[in-house]
Amino acid sequence: MITLAVDCMGGDHGPRVTLAACRGFLERHPEASLLLVGMPDALSSFSHPRATVVAATEVVGMDDPIEIALRKKKDSSMRVTIQQVKDGAAQAAVSAGNTGALMAIARYLLKTLDGIDRPAIAPQLPNSKGGATTVLDLGANVDCDAEDLLQFAVLGSALVSALTGNESPSVGLLNVGEEAIKGSETIKKASQLLRKAANSQDLNFYGNVEGNDIFKGTTDIVVCDGFVGNVTLKATEGVASMIVDFLRIEYSSGIFSKFAAIVSYPVLKALKKRLDHRRYNGAALLGLRGLVFKSHGSADAVAFGHALDRAYDAARNNLLDRVRARIAHAAPLLARQEPAAADAAALHV
Amino acid sequence: MITLAVDCMGGDHGPRVTLAACRGFLERHPEASLLLVGMPDALSSFSHPRATVVAATEVVGMDDPIEIALRKKKDSSMRVTIQQVKDGAAQAAVSAGNTGALMAIARYLLKTLDGIDRPAIAPQLPNSKGGATTVLDLGANVDCDAEDLLQFAVLGSALVSALTGNESPSVGLLNVGEEAIKGSETIKKASQLLRKAANSQDLNFYGNVEGNDIFKGTTDIVVCDGFVGNVTLKATEGVASMIVDFLRIEYSSGIFSKFAAIVSYPVLKALKKRLDHRRYNGAALLGLRGLVFKSHGSADAVAFGHALDRAYDAARNNLLDRVRARIAHAAPLLARQEPAAADAAALHV
Repeated sequence: MITLAVDCMGGDHGPRVTLAACRGFLERHPEASLLLVGMPDALSSFSHPRATVVAATEVVGMDDPIEIALRKKKDSSMRVTIQQVKDGAAQAAVSAGNTGALMAIARYLLKTLDGIDRPAIAPQLPNSKGGATTVLDLGANVDCDAEDLLQFAVLGSALVSALTGNESPSVGLLNVGEEAIKGSETIKKASQLLRKAANSQDLNFYGNVEGNDIFKGTTDIVVCDGFVGNVTLKATEGVASMIVDFLRIEYSSGIFSKFAAIVSYPVLKALKKRLDHRRYNGAALLGLRGLVFKSHGSADAVAFGHALDRAYDAARNNLLDRVRARIAHAAPLLARQEPAAADAAALHV
Repeated sequence: MITLAVDCMGGDHGPRVTLAACRGFLERHPEASLLLVGMPDALSSFSHPRATVVAATEVVGMDDPIEIALRKKKDSSMRVTIQQVKDGAAQAAVSAGNTGALMAIARYLLKTLDGIDRPAIAPQLPNSKGGATTVLDLGANVDCDAEDLLQFAVLGSALVSALTGNESPSVGLLNVGEEAIKGSETIKKASQLLRKAANSQDLNFYGNVEGNDIFKGTTDIVVCDGFVGNVTLKATEGVASMIVDFLRIEYSSGIFSKFAAIVSYPVLKALKKRLDHRRYNGAALLGLRGLVFKSHGSADAVAFGHALDRAYDAARNNLLDRVRARIAHAAPLLARQEPAAADAAALHV
C-alpha cells in the first residue's frame, strides 16, 4: 500500500483546499492511505479509515525566508511532512507551500542522491500534441554548468518513465538554435555530454531544441538551467493570461460581442481547460533520497488533487528506484572530472 | 531629408514584398527618400522620384553561414545596404535577411561605438497595456556579463526615447524574482550597476522584473542576455501559436462551433491583430556607429513597412546622437574595470 504524507497547512488556502483534495484522492485510490500533517484543530473535521493525522505545531508562511523556515520552524507542517518520507512512514510528500523553503527543507532532511549535486524542480507544461512536456530545472538552480544539465536530463528521464511508462523518453537541450555549434559555452559542453550519454544508452537525446519546441511537444523532456526555466515559464504564463484577458475584454465590449461570447462558451471553456495549469499541477523535486512533490500555492482542490495523483503515480511506479538505476547506469558520465585550470571557473568549486 | 537604404533582396519573399512596402512607405512619408539595393533586373519594375536603385550582384541566403556572407559575398545586397549608411548616403539601413549575417556585416562595416563591447538586438513585444515592451538582447550575445547588461540598458533607453519621446523610459532587469538578493551572480552584479546608473541619472531603473512582466508592460524596457531573450521570445511565440491553433481547431470541430466562429469573427480578428507581430516588426541593432533595423524574414509588405517606419522614426529622432549622448553621460560607469582575479572568469578576457 502506498502512503502519501500531505502538508495540509501549505498553500494559499490551507486545509479547506488540501482536505477536500485528500477526500477525493482517497475515493479515487482505494489502495492508498494518507498522513495528514498539520495542526490537529484544523484537521479535526476530517475522518477517514485510511487517513491518519500527524500533528505539527507550526506553519511555514508563503513569504517566510528560507532561513526562518529551515532553522526556526522546526515543527512546521512542511518539515514534519518531509520527515514522514525520511522515516519511511510515507513513500512521497506533497506540499503547496513556499517553493524555496520546501526545497531547502527537503534537501536538508533527505539529502541528495549520490551522483547528484543539485536537486531540480520538474513541472509539466501542456503542449500542442495534447500531452505535456516536462521541463527542468524550473527555478531551483540559477547558475548551472554542463554536468548539472546532464544530471537534470537523467533525473527527468526517470520521472517521465515512471509517470508515463515510456522507458525511453526523448530529451531536448534548450538552446538558441538547433545547430550543435550554437549557444553558450556551457550549452555546447552540455550538448557533448548529452550526446555521450545517448551513445552509452543512458538517455534518448534528441539534440538542441528552441523555446517554441516546449509547446510543440518536440521532445518529452526539455533541459535548461533554473534561471532560463523560471523566466521562460513566467513569460509564457504572461502571454497566455494576456491573451485570455484580451478575449474577455473583447467579448464583453458590446452587445454583439457578448452574444458571440455566449455562443462561443463551449470553445472558450475548452480553451480554458486546455490552458488550465491545474491539470499539470504537481512538480517533482528530483535528485533527493525521497519523493517530494510541489503543488502551486494557489491550487484549488482539483489542482491539489492532481498533485496528489502525480505523487501517487511516481511512488507506485518506483520513481526513486528508477532514478537510482539511471544514475548507476550513467555513473561513469556523471562522475564530475576534477576541475582543470580552464574549467575551474565553470565549476562550483 | 531622411534617406533609408533598403535591402530589397532580403527575407523569404524578396522584392515582391520589399518593393510593395517601399511604395507604401514613400506615400506615407513625403519627406523621405529611399535607396533600393539589389539586382537591377529584380528592381526594374519600381520607379519613384524619391527612390534610387543601388546595384548589388549577390544575395545573402537565409541559411548562408556567417563566414560566407561576410567573407565571400562582398557585393551582397545586405552589405551594400549597410555600406550606404557607412558612406553617409543613408541615415539608416533595413534588411529582412539572415540575422547572424546582418549583425556580423553591420559590426564589421560600421564598428561598435566607443564604450560598447557588443551590439544588441532590440525588438518590441506587445503588452497588456496596449503598448510595446522593448526587450534586449534577443539573440546576438549568448554569454553576457553585468557590464554588457548595463550597456544594453543604456542603448535600450536611447532607442525608446527616440521612438516614443519618453525621455526617461523605465528599465527592468529580467530575473527569477523581484527581490534584489535573487538571481545568478551576473544578475546580482548587474542589478548593482543599474542601481548606480539610476543614482547618476543615467537610467530610470525600476528593479528586477520577472518573465510575465514583459507582457504586463511593467517597464518600458526589459534587459536580459541574448540566450534568455531568444529562448523567452521563442517560447512565448510557441504558446501564442498553440492557443491560436487550438482556437482554430475548436471552432471548426462541429456545426455549432463553426457558427460560433462566424459570430466571433470580429473578436478573433481583433485578437489576431493584437498578437500580430507585424505591428512590432523592425528590431534595432544597437551599439553600432550607424542605424540598422532587422525585419522578420517572413515579413509581408505590411510588416516590412512597419520596419521601414521604425527605422525612419529612429533616424528622424536622431537615435544615433541619443545613443552617443547617453553613452557619454554614463561613461564613468561604462568604463569596464580591469578584471581583478576574482572577476576574471566573468569577463570576456
